[in-house]
Amino acid sequence: MFTSVIVGSFILCFSIQTCSGVKYEPNWNSIDSRPLPAWYDDAKIGMFINWGVYSVPSYHDEWFWYWWKGPKPNPSVVKLMEKFYPPTFTYADFASEFKAEFYDPLKWVDIIEHSGAKYVVLSTKHHEGFTMYPSKYSFNWNSVDVGPNKDLIKYIFAYLAGSDVHFGIYHSLFEWFNPLYLQDKANNYTTQKFVKEKGMAELYEIVEMYRPDVVWSDGDWEATSTYWNATQFLAWLYNDSPVKDSVVVNDRWGYDSTCKHGGFLTCTDRFNPGKLQKRKWENAMTLDRVSWGFRRDACLADFYSMEELLELLIHTISYGGNILINVGPTPYGTFSPIYEERFRQLGSWLKINGEGIYSTKPWTHQNDTITSKVWYTSPKADKKAVYGFFMNWPIDNELTLGSVSGPSLAGVTLVGSNKTLTWESSGSGIKINIPPHNIREMPCLWAWALKFTFH
Amino acid sequence: MFTSVIVGSFILCFSIQTCSGVKYEPNWNSIDSRPLPAWYDDAKIGMFINWGVYSVPSYHDEWFWYWWKGPKPNPSVVKLMEKFYPPTFTYADFASEFKAEFYDPLKWVDIIEHSGAKYVVLSTKHHEGFTMYPSKYSFNWNSVDVGPNKDLIKYIFAYLAGSDVHFGIYHSLFEWFNPLYLQDKANNYTTQKFVKEKGMAELYEIVEMYRPDVVWSDGDWEATSTYWNATQFLAWLYNDSPVKDSVVVNDRWGYDSTCKHGGFLTCTDRFNPGKLQKRKWENAMTLDRVSWGFRRDACLADFYSMEELLELLIHTISYGGNILINVGPTPYGTFSPIYEERFRQLGSWLKINGEGIYSTKPWTHQNDTITSKVWYTSPKADKKAVYGFFMNWPIDNELTLGSVSGPSLAGVTLVGSNKTLTWESSGSGIKINIPPHNIREMPCLWAWALKFTFH
Amino acid sequence: MFTSVIVGSFILCFSIQTCSGVKYEPNWNSIDSRPLPAWYDDAKIGMFINWGVYSVPSYHDEWFWYWWKGPKPNPSVVKLMEKFYPPTFTYADFASEFKAEFYDPLKWVDIIEHSGAKYVVLSTKHHEGFTMYPSKYSFNWNSVDVGPNKDLIKYIFAYLAGSDVHFGIYHSLFEWFNPLYLQDKANNYTTQKFVKEKGMAELYEIVEMYRPDVVWSDGDWEATSTYWNATQFLAWLYNDSPVKDSVVVNDRWGYDSTCKHGGFLTCTDRFNPGKLQKRKWENAMTLDRVSWGFRRDACLADFYSMEELLELLIHTISYGGNILINVGPTPYGTFSPIYEERFRQLGSWLKINGEGIYSTKPWTHQNDTITSKVWYTSPKADKKAVYGFFMNWPIDNELTLGSVSGPSLAGVTLVGSNKTLTWESSGSGIKINIPPHNIREMPCLWAWALKFTFH
Amino acid sequence: MFTSVIVGSFILCFSIQTCSGVKYEPNWNSIDSRPLPAWYDDAKIGMFINWGVYSVPSYHDEWFWYWWKGPKPNPSVVKLMEKFYPPTFTYADFASEFKAEFYDPLKWVDIIEHSGAKYVVLSTKHHEGFTMYPSKYSFNWNSVDVGPNKDLIKYIFAYLAGSDVHFGIYHSLFEWFNPLYLQDKANNYTTQKFVKEKGMAELYEIVEMYRPDVVWSDGDWEATSTYWNATQFLAWLYNDSPVKDSVVVNDRWGYDSTCKHGGFLTCTDRFNPGKLQKRKWENAMTLDRVSWGFRRDACLADFYSMEELLELLIHTISYGGNILINVGPTPYGTFSPIYEERFRQLGSWLKINGEGIYSTKPWTHQNDTITSKVWYTSPKADKKAVYGFFMNWPIDNELTLGSVSGPSLAGVTLVGSNKTLTWESSGSGIKINIPPHNIREMPCLWAWALKFTFH
Repeated sequence: MFTSVIVGSFILCFSIQTCSGVKYEPNWNSIDSRPLPAWYDDAKIGMFINWGVYSVPSYHDEWFWYWWKGPKPNPSVVKLMEKFYPPTFTYADFASEFKAEFYDPLKWVDIIEHSGAKYVVLSTKHHEGFTMYPSKYSFNWNSVDVGPNKDLIKYIFAYLAGSDVHFGIYHSLFEWFNPLYLQDKANNYTTQKFVKEKGMAELYEIVEMYRPDVVWSDGDWEATSTYWNATQFLAWLYNDSPVKDSVVVNDRWGYDSTCKHGGFLTCTDRFNPGKLQKRKWENAMTLDRVSWGFRRDACLADFYSMEELLELLIHTISYGGNILINVGPTPYGTFSPIYEERFRQLGSWLKINGEGIYSTKPWTHQNDTITSKVWYTSPKADKKAVYGFFMNWPIDNELTLGSVSGPSLAGVTLVGSNKTLTWESSGSGIKINIPPHNIREMPCLWAWALKFTFH
Repeated sequence: MFTSVIVGSFILCFSIQTCSGVKYEPNWNSIDSRPLPAWYDDAKIGMFINWGVYSVPSYHDEWFWYWWKGPKPNPSVVKLMEKFYPPTFTYADFASEFKAEFYDPLKWVDIIEHSGAKYVVLSTKHHEGFTMYPSKYSFNWNSVDVGPNKDLIKYIFAYLAGSDVHFGIYHSLFEWFNPLYLQDKANNYTTQKFVKEKGMAELYEIVEMYRPDVVWSDGDWEATSTYWNATQFLAWLYNDSPVKDSVVVNDRWGYDSTCKHGGFLTCTDRFNPGKLQKRKWENAMTLDRVSWGFRRDACLADFYSMEELLELLIHTISYGGNILINVGPTPYGTFSPIYEERFRQLGSWLKINGEGIYSTKPWTHQNDTITSKVWYTSPKADKKAVYGFFMNWPIDNELTLGSVSGPSLAGVTLVGSNKTLTWESSGSGIKINIPPHNIREMPCLWAWALKFTFH
Repeated sequence: MFTSVIVGSFILCFSIQTCSGVKYEPNWNSIDSRPLPAWYDDAKIGMFINWGVYSVPSYHDEWFWYWWKGPKPNPSVVKLMEKFYPPTFTYADFASEFKAEFYDPLKWVDIIEHSGAKYVVLSTKHHEGFTMYPSKYSFNWNSVDVGPNKDLIKYIFAYLAGSDVHFGIYHSLFEWFNPLYLQDKANNYTTQKFVKEKGMAELYEIVEMYRPDVVWSDGDWEATSTYWNATQFLAWLYNDSPVKDSVVVNDRWGYDSTCKHGGFLTCTDRFNPGKLQKRKWENAMTLDRVSWGFRRDACLADFYSMEELLELLIHTISYGGNILINVGPTPYGTFSPIYEERFRQLGSWLKINGEGIYSTKPWTHQNDTITSKVWYTSPKADKKAVYGFFMNWPIDNELTLGSVSGPSLAGVTLVGSNKTLTWESSGSGIKINIPPHNIREMPCLWAWALKFTFH
Repeated sequence: MFTSVIVGSFILCFSIQTCSGVKYEPNWNSIDSRPLPAWYDDAKIGMFINWGVYSVPSYHDEWFWYWWKGPKPNPSVVKLMEKFYPPTFTYADFASEFKAEFYDPLKWVDIIEHSGAKYVVLSTKHHEGFTMYPSKYSFNWNSVDVGPNKDLIKYIFAYLAGSDVHFGIYHSLFEWFNPLYLQDKANNYTTQKFVKEKGMAELYEIVEMYRPDVVWSDGDWEATSTYWNATQFLAWLYNDSPVKDSVVVNDRWGYDSTCKHGGFLTCTDRFNPGKLQKRKWENAMTLDRVSWGFRRDACLADFYSMEELLELLIHTISYGGNILINVGPTPYGTFSPIYEERFRQLGSWLKINGEGIYSTKPWTHQNDTITSKVWYTSPKADKKAVYGFFMNWPIDNELTLGSVSGPSLAGVTLVGSNKTLTWESSGSGIKINIPPHNIREMPCLWAWALKFTFH
């Protein structure tokens, strides 16, 4: 009924039409049998946007409430509250200070489109339970009823429609302090009041309202996928939802599911296994090393440099992963300029080097056997081509590679440069001579791609 | 199985033990067959306390949200918001300004106990949906999660335990703007999502947490008792709840129920029918004529004077009603002194005249046939006694009454005075001569009681 | 040049024209030589209005800032701040919460006019330094620049123009925490930076802007009148100001001045010497016993009852004082109803009994020699009349008075009643028989006046 | 008495001791005769920090109040206020939202010290009148009395003591809306109430409290230096103040002074005359092109890139100017990371290239006669050396310069590189061949310096 192809070792679905012929059952065998819609593996680069009430205190990280009132309070969070807030102040009191005054979805979309990301995953609700849209299931604890007084999902969704960037949503199944959840938990998850009235109810609602191509589930880890009614949801999503053909999901559907079932694997935050995986996977990371949410006190050193970001990105792609790069917007609705700078620089780099990133698959080798910090990708559309990315420009302009054998090599170019490169065999590998490129001649900064063509 | 007695024309239940032998069915016939626990009819005077987020804007009345954002906005409410709040301000934003800084339940209990009220009905949730206690069903829209950061029901409940004042709760079934309710409504009440997840769920929770002797339901009027699952709740309340023997309920359980079914009848706000009723009824009124919630701009003329209050009270009692007298506390947790003054003056008056109020039943006549503004009550414990209350002290100290016949009369006294009163027949009635009482000799101000004893 | 008359033992000025012929010198001898404009002694009853930033925390009293941050912090004030405000919160931060949303000067004027007060003293600035009008000398620390965003003096002043109520202002010379003042103080008052740039500068400004008939100075006590440049100001006020003919001032112009110099004496708050004074004096008191500013947590018992108020008022008038009765309005701009009630009841009482209060002078006796709680006044316009006020209605309707001798007595009436009173000599005094008055016949409650006419 | 030297064409003072022998008179001739302390011309690079209450709305620019309430309101500012604030909100109300929660002066000092700046100019008060320290002359409108509740000047001053970075202050003479100023203005500046009580009073106070080496005056332009008492202040500053030997001032002391009198000339904001000046001058500019204060809605494109910044910097230095580079900190007390990035990158660039910047003077040529975007400086300590900065790396690695003549040239190096450069005469100039430098061999990015040594 449908055509699929093993790429690396995971199933992809090349045609939306052919994906939709099957009826999935609410069990993992059936759910897992669905091929991942092909767009996702081709997209490679996603932007993750974590925004919520935690963006108001915007301190420590987006788990602010948990660090403040959870079982193991964080002293610095507690101290901030003691110094600058009244003792009776509650977390929900923050919501009225969330104003999003300068939120301009067109500006966000402009950054998204210039970042080179091919999908965006927007938080609709984090563990705090606050929905960034007018959920029926979160009365007075959503962005329309309190604080910003607007739907913060709708326009990003709308403005991306028709672009080549897929729209996705992040959603936390559980909520740290929701009493319905805590009751189910106290009942050892034998009851599902929370799942039915809030957790899952919202997810159906979100899919119907905003038709996301990515459903990025989180907050699953304390219970099983059975508690969460996950396979029922996924069967509906795959069979009957408005996005049944295009949607991809991750793997966070219960502790029995993570890193095993669902769509692509995320396993842990910043998942970067360093070896090929049987299934498609994603490395979700954040430009601010220590937080997914905006931090007012973040300093420059907390942010990934372009070199660090690109090394991680290339490493991830070479092993078959996608990378999901996070920004935490401000409570007033902007991307702090440091984020914008990183994303625009990334976009400028991808404009040159994207041919070795998008729509590629892992090559025979991932990491070069001789020179570390060289990684390979292979374009799906050209079986005779391979890209090798290097992070450190060789001081003597000579790059020795162990994974590329001389005899089969037909040509080498520096992507973005029209200078002629030469090479010679060197042991089992080759030594490539890159002619001098002064700063004006460089195709880009930070990292570079060699394109190899083989006979 | 149980002993009941027809008083006036309604069923009362004299013994807690005998009340509990029956198993009630979830239908109105069965529910209505339960005798009203006797304490309630004896109590006569209740205090009603309406407190909530509306106490923050504290303008116009407790329907503030509705007048602001409902279908027919009130211009003065809209104007207040336009003048003093940002356009993006939401109703839920008010919650963080609800601080209850000076809330001292002991002070409230002191006023309650000096007011002469024998029961108190405290609002646990109004139509705004905000619960004044940590409800499991109202995450981040309750007084612990946002604003006051405390349970505002618990201590009143606790401090009244052991006193002779019964503790009761007010609860609104519906919520103006709750999307789950609006959805059920849009479904023409064929769904009950709201009832099951919020409306009724809370009522069970409240009963179990605070064991009220009065469940004062409201907000029922848009739907039937079937939608509200009212008889199921009442059957549980009467059969299995911790207050099954002592609890009384009102009649607001659906538009088919109001003024017909349940416990005592409230029919409309300020219900005061002016004739005897088949069932026990209650006149719920408020000292601030125009609002149940605190109003910052209320002026003196807005409040019932003692004369007005007592006339209403006596009229109500004489016709078999209870009176529930409302106060709207401030957002900072106090009774404005004008309320305290009225309640303490009421208490001082009842200390003298309570013998003709508490534990009485309507007499043969309610209103005197000759002198208006004279009303009668009959003490349950003394079949030969009758009380006649008069509002206007006769300028010539002679009171002519048409409902009391001379021959059967054995004695007349002015309650609280030891001066000797004389009387003579006068037509079909009598003329009573009240000896001069100067201000120092007066038992009280505002209204007075004559006690008649008959042969 | 002008006609004055010794009444009791103080100088009054009967004619505005005649008062203005003199040129006063900036020394106390000259200043003190000015007769007090006659309207003031005739007025007797003033309303004092203390309103300011302290009305926002509205706790403890209007010295809130001092109790919080002054040399001897008050534990309950400190605790309130610790419980409900962030540690970094400052007193000036309160100003932005001062909104006066419901401030309606017409409503205030209505209460003033129904209170029986013949002058009103409105605070323009308390020791906190916040001006209730747009002072040039208090940039961003005044009611137009921060908080209410309006002039809170102007309209009361304007709406009283043309009424029979004189407009006056309260002004504090010093400011607890003003660094310019503290510097002058540290310089042992050898410098006058604060006086010239703020303290006195404002007073000139206020007089020119609002033309008050009363200048009620305060906050003088830490320094001499020389430091304050008081006599210079008063010479200007008496010689050249727009209110030179009508203005009266009090005595708080430096610690050498209080209770000695200036206009009428106030000596201490609640000054009530219980004996005749050489100079006109005033008893400034407040309905809330413990605070001049609004207190959110005030309870009924904190307020003077009508009996207490009237006893104090009558006592004060009988000894030649005026009484200045204080209200502390709310931060939202209203009189709490309890204040309104007291003032309206006072007005209703004065409507009956004012003939024995206004335009009277002390009589030969002040307090009756036999029956305590009886005090006398003497109408200026009728040398043969005397009023005797009594607080306790005699249980036997017989009042024995030691200060009124029978022989000279031509008649006695109960003010407001047309019943005939009789009397007989009794020792050196008389025994008056008041015929029975039932509650309907009573002219008023709380206190009563007998009018004696002599041959 | 003192030694001075003409450098370019302005007077510098080399020795603190020798500067102090003269007694300056309060007139411009005398004031202008004072040599500029030498440290200032050597320092070249300053950091400007503009922080105040305007950092709270942080929109449009630091003239927010003026655009909102001034004579020509800016529609976007007015609209922001209308959308997000109540109509009664005042500018002073913003102060209580200024919290500086994350203000850590050690972090600021760390950035300052890594930026390469040799002096810092911190705003003590802008045209809004709010002092960032506890001024005696700005009661309740300063950072200790309201908002941050701390002295925001003290610790930067203290932590820089002993470092090689000079501490300076910015101070606005006038205040847009101060009524005392407006009164003087209305009096056509014939009165000086504002100058004496606030404007100048503060400047003396600041100098005594914080001993700045730079007094950067502003807000002078509506009046003359006579009105401002400027020469009196400067005479005191130069003769008697604690910083008399080290302090430098700018030229903004009245409209007759700007660009003419005082210390270094600033003339206009972003002054960059493009030709040599008779007096030392400074180019005050800001990294955010459109605002000196923090803007929440600033986007990346609003900030100077490193290339733009360095081009401006080099251009400025080559013509004898200093450059003062501005940052607008956040209301919570941090440098937004984009600012930190620019300053740290600047510091890294100066670490390499500072030898051609600090302690240099203009050379014979400023801009190369052949290749534009090449500018020269000349080290004071080495008369045979010249630096030539170029912005665009030549695509062919050959740089043709018209201002350097071949015959006299003894050597050329690329600062930070040890590769050998060669040159040949080319017309009246030379052609320099820069050997290939790959990215690893580059001393820096953005701009480069050649060091020429002459026979």
